[in-house]
Amino acid sequence: MPKNMADRLLEAVDEKENPSVVGLDPRIPRIPNHIKREAKENAFSPFEAVKLAIIEFNKGIIDAVKDIVPAVKPQMAFYERYGSQGAVAMEKTIKYARRQGLFVIEDIKRNDIGSTAEAYAEAHLGEVECLEGKKRAFDADFITVNAYLGSDGIEPFLNVCKKENKGIFVLDKTSNPSSGELQDRKIEGNGKVYELMAELTDKWGEELVGERGYSSVGAVVGATYPEEAEKLRKMMLRNLFLVPGYGAQGGTADDVIPCFNEDGYGAIVNSSRGIDYAYEKEEYQEYGPEAYEKASKRAALDMKEDILKSLEKGGKVPDGW
Amino acid sequence: MPKNMADRLLEAVDEKENPSVVGLDPRIPRIPNHIKREAKENAFSPFEAVKLAIIEFNKGIIDAVKDIVPAVKPQMAFYERYGSQGAVAMEKTIKYARRQGLFVIEDIKRNDIGSTAEAYAEAHLGEVECLEGKKRAFDADFITVNAYLGSDGIEPFLNVCKKENKGIFVLDKTSNPSSGELQDRKIEGNGKVYELMAELTDKWGEELVGERGYSSVGAVVGATYPEEAEKLRKMMLRNLFLVPGYGAQGGTADDVIPCFNEDGYGAIVNSSRGIDYAYEKEEYQEYGPEAYEKASKRAALDMKEDILKSLEKGGKVPDGW
Repeated sequence: MPKNMADRLLEAVDEKENPSVVGLDPRIPRIPNHIKREAKENAFSPFEAVKLAIIEFNKGIIDAVKDIVPAVKPQMAFYERYGSQGAVAMEKTIKYARRQGLFVIEDIKRNDIGSTAEAYAEAHLGEVECLEGKKRAFDADFITVNAYLGSDGIEPFLNVCKKENKGIFVLDKTSNPSSGELQDRKIEGNGKVYELMAELTDKWGEELVGERGYSSVGAVVGATYPEEAEKLRKMMLRNLFLVPGYGAQGGTADDVIPCFNEDGYGAIVNSSRGIDYAYEKEEYQEYGPEAYEKASKRAALDMKEDILKSLEKGGKVPDGW
Repeated sequence: MPKNMADRLLEAVDEKENPSVVGLDPRIPRIPNHIKREAKENAFSPFEAVKLAIIEFNKGIIDAVKDIVPAVKPQMAFYERYGSQGAVAMEKTIKYARRQGLFVIEDIKRNDIGSTAEAYAEAHLGEVECLEGKKRAFDADFITVNAYLGSDGIEPFLNVCKKENKGIFVLDKTSNPSSGELQDRKIEGNGKVYELMAELTDKWGEELVGERGYSSVGAVVGATYPEEAEKLRKMMLRNLFLVPGYGAQGGTADDVIPCFNEDGYGAIVNSSRGIDYAYEKEEYQEYGPEAYEKASKRAALDMKEDILKSLEKGGKVPDGW
C-alpha cells in the first residue's frame, strides 16, 4: 500500500517540525504597491492586472515560507472574486507551490450531488476528460468540502481521493461566531449536528486510512471553539483536523492544542491574514511593503514557535522533534 | 421602492406563462460532434477547445429556449471542471443569456464566512475592486448558497443582494437520496434540520420582500420530496422555491405542485439533462445531434405543458394565464 495523503502531509510536518500552514488570501487593497504597479504595466485588462499582482504576491510568500511550513492553503473566494482571471491565478499558485515542494490545501468548501460533485472532484483533485484525452485543471492535494447534502455529496470526492491518492477536509465545527446556529443544535437521540458530522466524517474516511493511522478524510474544526475541539478529537482519532481561526480570528496557540492527539499529531493550524499581511503589523514594520515577504517569513517563524511552545506546555510535542 | 429580484423573475414567469427553467450543464461527451469538431479547429489548447464547445453548445440552447422560459440555471461544477477556461465559459454564458433577456440563476452552492463570503458575493452578484476602479466578474441574477455555517455565512450575500437588487436561493431540502442524513434529523425542541433552515431562510429574507410579497431570498427544495415540500411551502410563504430533481432525477410534474402556493406562484422548476440532451432521447430522435437545439426547444415546451397540466389539476394556475 502506498502512503496516503495524510502520511505524506505528516511526513512534511515532521520534516519541518511544524504543524502550521500559511493561507494565501490575496486582497488587492493590501498587496504592496510595487507589485500592483508592475502588474498594471504588464496587463492588457483590469482583471489581468489583478491576476498578475496575485501571482507575484503569492510567489513572494511561497518562496519565503517554503522551508518553514509543510503546506499552503489558498482560499478560492479571493481568486474567484476576479472571475476567470482569478481562476488562472489559483491554477498558477497551486502549480508554483507544489513545485516548491509544498502541499496545497485548496479551501473551496464545494458541495453538490452525484455527477455534479464528481465534476468538482475531478476539477480540483483529479483529471478531466477534454475533447481529446485527459487533463488536470486545478490539481490540488487537498480540498475542503461541505457535507450538508449527505453521503452522496461526499462519495464522488472519496472516489477521486482513492483513485488519485488525495485528500479532503469536511466542514465540521467552523470557526465563525454563528457556526452554532446549526452546528451546535442537539439532534434527538444523538449528539449535536457537529458530532453527527464527525461520525459521518470518520465513516467516510475508513477506507482511506494510511500507515500512520490517519485517514485522507479530515475535518475542519475551528480554533475558536477549543471545548468542542476537545470533544471532537476524542471522537475522530484517525481524522486530521484542519484548524482555521488562529490569529486574525482570535484563536490562540493554546486554543488549538486540544485539536492535537496525545502524540502531537492530528492537526494542521492555518493562519492567513496574519502571515500574508504581516508587513502591515507594528511588530514587523521594519521590513516595509517592499520586503513584505520577509515580514511574512518572520511571522511564519513566529507562528511556528508560538504553536510549538503551546504544544510543549500541553506535553504534545512529537517524539524526535 | 424598486421591484425586487423576485418581482422581476415572476414578471418573466407571467410573460412566458411558465414557471420552469432550463439548467445549462455542459457535459463534453454529450455535446454533439459538429460543435466539438469546430471547437477543436479553432482552439490553441485542449481546455480552450472545451471552452469554445461549451459556449457554442449553450448559445444553441439559449437561443432555442429564450422565448419559452424565464431563466436558465448554469451549474458551476460543469464549468469549473475545466479550470479557468471553464470559468470563461461560465462568464460568457451568463452574459449571453442575460443579453437574450433571460434571468440567470448561477448554481454554485457557495459558502464561507465574513469577508470570504463577501468575496464570493461580489464575484457572482456584485462588483469587485480591481487595481483601478470596479468591475463585474460573473454577474448573475441569482446564486445558490449553502448555509451550514449559519448567519455570518449568509449576511455578506444579503448585503450584496440589497445593494445590487439581486437574489439567492438557500439550500434547504435537497433532491438527492441521502439529503435526509443531516437535513431530516430532528432537532431537540425544534423541527427537523431542513425546517430550522426554512425558519432561518425566511428570517434572512425579511428585509428583501418585494411588491408581490416574495423575498429575494428563496430556498432550494427538491422535487423528489413532495411531502417535505408541502410542509415547507406552509412555513415559507414569502420565499420562492428553486426546485431541482424534475425529470432525470425522478421528480414528476405532480411532485412539484406542492412547491407552489395556492395562487400558482412561488416555485421555479428546473430541468437540466432532460432539456440539454433531449436530442439523445427516443422521443426527440427525429432532430438528430446536428439540430440538438430544436430537440431542446421541443423538450422545453413539453416540460412547460407537463407542469401546466399538473398545475391545472392542482387548481394552481395563476389568474390571467
